[in-house]
Amino acid sequence: MSSVTGNKIKLCVFGESHGQAIGCVIDSLPAGLKLDLDKIRLDMQRRAPGRNKQSTARKEADEFEIVSGLLNGETTGAPLTMYIKNTNTRSTDYENIKLIARPSHSDYPAFIKYSGKNDSAGGGHFSGRLTAPIVFAGAVAKQALAERGVFVGAHIAEIAGAADERFDKNNIDRALLARLGQSEFSLIDENSGAKMRELIEQARLAGDSVGGEIECAVIGMPVGAGANIFDTVESRLSAALFAVPAVKGVQFGAGFGFSAMRGSEANDCYGVENGRVVTLSNNNGGILGGMTTGAPVVFSVAIKPTPSISVPQQSVNLKTMQNETLVIKGRHDPCIVQRAVPVIEAMAAFTMLDILI
Amino acid sequence: MSSVTGNKIKLCVFGESHGQAIGCVIDSLPAGLKLDLDKIRLDMQRRAPGRNKQSTARKEADEFEIVSGLLNGETTGAPLTMYIKNTNTRSTDYENIKLIARPSHSDYPAFIKYSGKNDSAGGGHFSGRLTAPIVFAGAVAKQALAERGVFVGAHIAEIAGAADERFDKNNIDRALLARLGQSEFSLIDENSGAKMRELIEQARLAGDSVGGEIECAVIGMPVGAGANIFDTVESRLSAALFAVPAVKGVQFGAGFGFSAMRGSEANDCYGVENGRVVTLSNNNGGILGGMTTGAPVVFSVAIKPTPSISVPQQSVNLKTMQNETLVIKGRHDPCIVQRAVPVIEAMAAFTMLDILI
Amino acid sequence: MSSVTGNKIKLCVFGESHGQAIGCVIDSLPAGLKLDLDKIRLDMQRRAPGRNKQSTARKEADEFEIVSGLLNGETTGAPLTMYIKNTNTRSTDYENIKLIARPSHSDYPAFIKYSGKNDSAGGGHFSGRLTAPIVFAGAVAKQALAERGVFVGAHIAEIAGAADERFDKNNIDRALLARLGQSEFSLIDENSGAKMRELIEQARLAGDSVGGEIECAVIGMPVGAGANIFDTVESRLSAALFAVPAVKGVQFGAGFGFSAMRGSEANDCYGVENGRVVTLSNNNGGILGGMTTGAPVVFSVAIKPTPSISVPQQSVNLKTMQNETLVIKGRHDPCIVQRAVPVIEAMAAFTMLDILI
Amino acid sequence: MSSVTGNKIKLCVFGESHGQAIGCVIDSLPAGLKLDLDKIRLDMQRRAPGRNKQSTARKEADEFEIVSGLLNGETTGAPLTMYIKNTNTRSTDYENIKLIARPSHSDYPAFIKYSGKNDSAGGGHFSGRLTAPIVFAGAVAKQALAERGVFVGAHIAEIAGAADERFDKNNIDRALLARLGQSEFSLIDENSGAKMRELIEQARLAGDSVGGEIECAVIGMPVGAGANIFDTVESRLSAALFAVPAVKGVQFGAGFGFSAMRGSEANDCYGVENGRVVTLSNNNGGILGGMTTGAPVVFSVAIKPTPSISVPQQSVNLKTMQNETLVIKGRHDPCIVQRAVPVIEAMAAFTMLDILI
Repeated sequence: MSSVTGNKIKLCVFGESHGQAIGCVIDSLPAGLKLDLDKIRLDMQRRAPGRNKQSTARKEADEFEIVSGLLNGETTGAPLTMYIKNTNTRSTDYENIKLIARPSHSDYPAFIKYSGKNDSAGGGHFSGRLTAPIVFAGAVAKQALAERGVFVGAHIAEIAGAADERFDKNNIDRALLARLGQSEFSLIDENSGAKMRELIEQARLAGDSVGGEIECAVIGMPVGAGANIFDTVESRLSAALFAVPAVKGVQFGAGFGFSAMRGSEANDCYGVENGRVVTLSNNNGGILGGMTTGAPVVFSVAIKPTPSISVPQQSVNLKTMQNETLVIKGRHDPCIVQRAVPVIEAMAAFTMLDILI
Repeated sequence: MSSVTGNKIKLCVFGESHGQAIGCVIDSLPAGLKLDLDKIRLDMQRRAPGRNKQSTARKEADEFEIVSGLLNGETTGAPLTMYIKNTNTRSTDYENIKLIARPSHSDYPAFIKYSGKNDSAGGGHFSGRLTAPIVFAGAVAKQALAERGVFVGAHIAEIAGAADERFDKNNIDRALLARLGQSEFSLIDENSGAKMRELIEQARLAGDSVGGEIECAVIGMPVGAGANIFDTVESRLSAALFAVPAVKGVQFGAGFGFSAMRGSEANDCYGVENGRVVTLSNNNGGILGGMTTGAPVVFSVAIKPTPSISVPQQSVNLKTMQNETLVIKGRHDPCIVQRAVPVIEAMAAFTMLDILI
Repeated sequence: MSSVTGNKIKLCVFGESHGQAIGCVIDSLPAGLKLDLDKIRLDMQRRAPGRNKQSTARKEADEFEIVSGLLNGETTGAPLTMYIKNTNTRSTDYENIKLIARPSHSDYPAFIKYSGKNDSAGGGHFSGRLTAPIVFAGAVAKQALAERGVFVGAHIAEIAGAADERFDKNNIDRALLARLGQSEFSLIDENSGAKMRELIEQARLAGDSVGGEIECAVIGMPVGAGANIFDTVESRLSAALFAVPAVKGVQFGAGFGFSAMRGSEANDCYGVENGRVVTLSNNNGGILGGMTTGAPVVFSVAIKPTPSISVPQQSVNLKTMQNETLVIKGRHDPCIVQRAVPVIEAMAAFTMLDILI
Repeated sequence: MSSVTGNKIKLCVFGESHGQAIGCVIDSLPAGLKLDLDKIRLDMQRRAPGRNKQSTARKEADEFEIVSGLLNGETTGAPLTMYIKNTNTRSTDYENIKLIARPSHSDYPAFIKYSGKNDSAGGGHFSGRLTAPIVFAGAVAKQALAERGVFVGAHIAEIAGAADERFDKNNIDRALLARLGQSEFSLIDENSGAKMRELIEQARLAGDSVGGEIECAVIGMPVGAGANIFDTVESRLSAALFAVPAVKGVQFGAGFGFSAMRGSEANDCYGVENGRVVTLSNNNGGILGGMTTGAPVVFSVAIKPTPSISVPQQSVNLKTMQNETLVIKGRHDPCIVQRAVPVIEAMAAFTMLDILI
């Protein structure tokens, strides 16, 4: 594979940052799913750039068109195809840096892999712009999941070291997830946002950028979803999440915190509640033996700082092999963590639907 | 999938902890690979239990037999099949706890998923014992990688909070990886082991267990390996690593540390060295845009404390739905981090070979 | 899978017969392939309806647009996406028969499978119209194969019992394949066409249709392509060919003729020619043990008569469960064999490229 | 893939003809399936050689051992692994012909593909002997299908031109399939067997061999199984069937007979019977648009004559590149059609189960 993913439902993403169009095909969706296009648009707006001072000033319309697989507002069972015309294409911003590999971007390995034939403008097919169709697919998946009683939501856990509250892992309700899903700067404790915004603004003024962490929860999964050994829920989710540009770490439940815990603290004991087995804590993030336990699936991802910064950086001209000092012009996000929130939700939703169906 | 993994090379693992045999089939290996069986045995011994005070007192022979795919010491191109007879089968240790779900084990979701028909003794197919065939497959993959100039090695980064040195991410040599690969308690700084052993012993005496972190490096990968968007090297490796029981987090390069970094610190600038482009730092762990950069691929995984502990735990009888206090008898590892080191190497080696071929 | 196929290269086909657009995404094509769009158009015209009396009078423009994956006339390595706007959409021709299953079409099982939510107009996603993107993908694959010295061509072996010459299986040259590839009624012996056309015309006048057989050859494959047991060249090709609507049989080399042969006649003996091993005959159609032998890969497919006929047929209203006499109006192909020739070539070319790469 | 197949259930076959063992792993079978081992043994005996004058005089015990995935007679949900020790290994029969490619066998392309490193004795991994684990897997699948009301059976349609009756395609009952499934020379009209046996015996006396055709039916499939475009039931079945050595053609329903039919004869009209839609004929072999129609799935496969014959054949020594006259010694089947019947049933059963689950 590569730009295609999924087992039972397939997601195929196409397009280049500054090409004619981007979009996706979702194959093998169940027929008869009523799509609420406004809900899809809302998620796409949460991801879209140019919406506030924390994001890039570029504006992308992201007006999508559905060209197959939908009839009278319901999925037909045939591939659902979505298409976004690029309105903001090949600018001169990128022309001057085409052969000078931007540090921490895909430029250098892509140049080698494709012998320089790839469309490198704006990162081409590797651009964060390709997360727009992913968010579309995720928004569709969320609606299919909601019909099955499964809900997904994420928030900014940390930006530049400033932290939001964490999920109470064993006790997450739909109302909280719904509130997070409507925000363009999703936080459990909205008061924690001021400090984050300030740190982003400082970075922006310095021509620099900041990273962070996003925490995500999925509630309502049945017990025993996922498959043994190689197709664990953790394997499936992490593979999907590392497809999101800038994600460099994934942890479930207590994650790297397990390293300093003893088994007696870490283990999630069992009790009976309303005639059902429940875990009394949820350090395992709702997954044991690679299968869901019925408790919320909770994980977080590390997001690296936006690689495009305007401070001068040392690089190399890939043709002449001369050292170059690179200054990236144009307007870039000083922080993409807030915009990545719906992308993380999307990959989680798509993957969970693929596991459930 | 589930107990089968891999794209071009397939690994199929079979067996149950207390069943008749465990083993694996490796399909589509290149023909003509000379196998050094002693090197395979060495890796299997590093994983095997009962080797020192830090591990369980159970002894497993792990004598493997190769029953197909090898002729005159070389692979034939047909499936390579390995088989280990279980000598230490179905004991009464597990009989008393069969219906009482062990906290943080697969017991409860497996019971639901398989309607109680799964072989639950010792965790059955979910047992850590199934990592023996994984280590075999990894040891085979390491030999195929070595022919291609690629080397893999891992060490205990942390146990119970006590830390080893970390890899110098941009500067890792074969000699270090070779040394780590021969140790049963792999450390970069061997002096850091005493504290770790002491903490394990304290946990053991308390009937408790400890967790940790393993760091792994792969050197010699060409530039541009891996595929765009959904089949990134990070996606492939993380999916493989989360198949290892007890792994709850995976991070590449600076990983979760990116959250508090600025782009200007985090970015890996480029220079020219001996006519080749090199990164001047390696916070991205040798992967950009999901492709290898030529720098060492460096990642670490979080290992949760062994769930089997002898301190009393609250649980539920899955048949009667009564609360029960569970005391797990038998001998268990107070720490599996050291034994997991060759398993992490194995999944990394298998995955890298599958990407390379 | 379903509307996605391929191992290393993926083909994803989307659209519905009377929807807004049809098209395809080809993922993981090699970068740097120069595309000759005129050659692609030629294949698409060979498939297009309305080109002669033997085909339906409907005209489809089939003007395609490439919206991603192509830069300066060369593939970029990112998904190549092709898009055809439907100009001839939802007509009333189909309205009256929507719930009355057309015999030998997909209507009835599709209605059950998708609970009536599928787009049934003109067969929807099951329509022969979806072979247009397949022909596009095949035309791209042919260009990639030609760079590797591999050539594909097919001809009408039989229509309504009237036969063309068959390939001389062990002796097929590029010139013949090139000639076949430029014809809209591809025949080895062009004199055999008059009888075929006459039989088609008779069927047309009777409001009926006819079936036939297409024979296809691939030359230039290296020895030993294909994989053992389950991934044989025959398995791969047949799976691809049965994806073409109306294909109901696939045979390689002597195929069903083997039933009346003895081994001594059937076996392809070996000789040496110009220092290379060659088969002295080619009853096995260039494939042994599922692998290519270096001889031409030769196979044929059975094409059933066009199911849409205007003679009255007995059917059932799927809602009322009443018997109905169905008379299919509109203009339909009395024979699709000639139009299916480039589709068979396309599936063969795509599959062979996927095997080779 | 290659020696692994299946989407939701995976079958992995291992072993070489004259190696230490052959066997298979079946992954992701449902848990709780009670296995009747005697029924499995019966199918394996139908395939086993040395059972009558029509088959080779070699005897293979084919005593299988199940080493994982079965507990108290029921599947556990973990991989089901089966293992047959080879008792009749590397004989001198093959030593003299090792480098002289046997015509119409896999020897030559395998030698090239694996650079001579493959185990060529008796065909190695390409041997018909590997159909023993396939029959095992099919026998397991049949039991899972029977629980779901689906039944599979096949018969010898033709040997050396002598024909059995064909299935009445729209009217096949369990009793007939059950009778076929217990025979070692399965025929609808048992009187047709005498002529076949006579023709086989004539070939045997001449040191020659004969081919044939096998017809197979699957009854009880629900309407709408199978997936659109590339994952049709025909694609899935044909891919599986061409994995069986000696199969060179697959046709569904009227198959190649469609070539001389008109649509008005070929189309399967609909009626209502007991409140259900039924087809009034079944020329499409129970499949439309790649999906099952509820009518019996009926197909036939062409089997080439056994390539191993004792009449002298022209070949080449692959090392010296000299022409050689090859006389194959040892005892070989003058006809494998009768032994292939349970293998065809097995691939059909496994595939249908994989589609259904």
